Amino acid sequence: MTTSPSEVSGPRPARPGRAAVVGTGLIGGSLGLALRARGWHVTGRDADPGRAGEALAVGALDAVGSDPAAEITFVATPLGATVEEVRAVLGQAGFASDAVVTDVAGVKAPVTSAVEDPRFVGGHPMAGSEQVGLSGADPDLFVGATWVLTPTDATVPEGFSRLRQVISSLGAEVVALSPEQHDALVAVVSHVPHLTAATLMNLADRMAVDHAVLLRLAAGGFRDMTRVAAGSPDIWPDVCTENAEAIVSTLDALLADLAAMRDRVVAGDRGALLDVLGRAASARRSLPSRAVRPERLAEFRIPVPDRTGVMAEIVTLASNLGLNISDLEIAHSAEGDRGVVILVIDAEATERLQKALEALGYRSVARQLG
Amino acid sequence: MTTSPSEVSGPRPARPGRAAVVGTGLIGGSLGLALRARGWHVTGRDADPGRAGEALAVGALDAVGSDPAAEITFVATPLGATVEEVRAVLGQAGFASDAVVTDVAGVKAPVTSAVEDPRFVGGHPMAGSEQVGLSGADPDLFVGATWVLTPTDATVPEGFSRLRQVISSLGAEVVALSPEQHDALVAVVSHVPHLTAATLMNLADRMAVDHAVLLRLAAGGFRDMTRVAAGSPDIWPDVCTENAEAIVSTLDALLADLAAMRDRVVAGDRGALLDVLGRAASARRSLPSRAVRPERLAEFRIPVPDRTGVMAEIVTLASNLGLNISDLEIAHSAEGDRGVVILVIDAEATERLQKALEALGYRSVARQLG
Repeated sequence: MTTSPSEVSGPRPARPGRAAVVGTGLIGGSLGLALRARGWHVTGRDADPGRAGEALAVGALDAVGSDPAAEITFVATPLGATVEEVRAVLGQAGFASDAVVTDVAGVKAPVTSAVEDPRFVGGHPMAGSEQVGLSGADPDLFVGATWVLTPTDATVPEGFSRLRQVISSLGAEVVALSPEQHDALVAVVSHVPHLTAATLMNLADRMAVDHAVLLRLAAGGFRDMTRVAAGSPDIWPDVCTENAEAIVSTLDALLADLAAMRDRVVAGDRGALLDVLGRAASARRSLPSRAVRPERLAEFRIPVPDRTGVMAEIVTLASNLGLNISDLEIAHSAEGDRGVVILVIDAEATERLQKALEALGYRSVARQLG
Repeated sequence: MTTSPSEVSGPRPARPGRAAVVGTGLIGGSLGLALRARGWHVTGRDADPGRAGEALAVGALDAVGSDPAAEITFVATPLGATVEEVRAVLGQAGFASDAVVTDVAGVKAPVTSAVEDPRFVGGHPMAGSEQVGLSGADPDLFVGATWVLTPTDATVPEGFSRLRQVISSLGAEVVALSPEQHDALVAVVSHVPHLTAATLMNLADRMAVDHAVLLRLAAGGFRDMTRVAAGSPDIWPDVCTENAEAIVSTLDALLADLAAMRDRVVAGDRGALLDVLGRAASARRSLPSRAVRPERLAEFRIPVPDRTGVMAEIVTLASNLGLNISDLEIAHSAEGDRGVVILVIDAEATERLQKALEALGYRSVARQLG
């Protein structure tokens, strides 16, 4: 496919087409509602046929079943069923070579390496982890949420670009990471915090057997810290076995840091306590809330060798720099051996991105838009 | 003082009198507003005279200064200044022998043992830990909050009873604990959770130096878990040194439990993970939110030897059973060698309290009210 480079001036509307959803729980149901609201035709199925029928009844689907003609298929099953269902979608008779399949599982490297198909791009919307099922489905579930995509060297750039555009159109901020990076980072911000919350909750509960009053002393801070532990435990055995390596190394870092904290308390080292708690306070206060819409945008044109993997490398670089990609396009030269990646980002970061691209051997041309 | 036992049928209104506040920040300012709204005359001072003037201006005080005639004095300074200020109040010329002094510091055993005066009762309102200063003062700050009082064998029962009644009138639920119990329990529900939140925040922040995208992945769970770490670090060196023993032993328990969690992940023990996370989910879901107002009340009359310490023992027992005391009175016999503690609690717990009292050697008569 040859796309002629066009003037890019901001996020383009995602032209609606045919989509499919496998698994019509909270995420699948919300995807159906959000896509249909934007004009998409959505077909869906669920391991529980009753739940697929319910999704049809609440307007999350146009039809129950499979759709080999779907341009994008979202596999929104629990982690344990993801690989099998992705393979089933890819193996459908008549499934197009330029179609895309993505998933929503919370661990990415095992899924990505098990599938190994250029039409599959791993995904993880960081929203709706409370697992409340179809009844919680909401077309605005993804508005403002971070949605990780994990393209690899094998990923077809056009498929990735289209998927990114469609997910952006649902209001999510797409971040591209390698599957391994994703898994290491969610161990820190999600998996280990969850295990820690559960451990704190059980510790307090064990003491409460002897001190019934204990849990009445649990004010806002304790409630905040243990809130995630109230979630269903069902997903965690899968998450912990699939992401064991990253979880264990993060737990080791936490154990070492907590032991150092214990030493400061034993030593009565007031200066060190003030320092470490002050650093935490300052880091927590500057935790980014939502991705901020940039005031001015800059368009980058990056000539690249026309091979897959190049675009994954570039968008992952941008994400690692903390940059939000406002638009993304691939233009292939007519000769077929070169191409151009067109990337739109916050103009503030122009110099930073240009230097990082140079370090990877890419020469880019940047111009400010608007 | 001889109080003739009277019909008790629910919380009595706290007759307003003269109160004093030392330290007019968030807690002191809120106390001033709440007490004045109930008809009390409130005198207050602050190490920063400007802040005391401000408290007067916003209506939290009737007068700036000290009031040796105050029936109740609240010392609402930071922990480091508490003992000195409590001693200053008790040492005022003309300070009445039946007056009460209390404090609001987050660690109780060191304060209580340093003061050792029958007119002092340690206190800790579990509210407003964000330390936002006088500007956050709110007459409703204590409504629904748990407020711990730590009477000891030395505490004058009438003073404790009066203090409990006044604090209840502000909307707080009073829980009586020994100072040592308080310190052990807040290590579990407050101090160690805070140190853990700060440790998690710093761990993520350290990784974010290499992975700018990391903090964009921090969804609701991570935000909830680290929220307390945003608070000012200033109070923590005092808390950690004053409550070091309880904090260290709780940290040791947490370290052991987290290491056990690590072992489950390493072993891929799905059953054990499901079990431990399921227990945490169920404990978190049944975490009591607010103290529930009982439908029916029961009045206990407990003949006791007329000596101090007896009432502290009985109310601490009720708190340890998780019971909320709706009313409390001390009646002394005319002969002076015996007395009666009158306690009103949830009628549901009648049998449980009666048995626990028997185990301590107290025979009680209970009757249902209303």
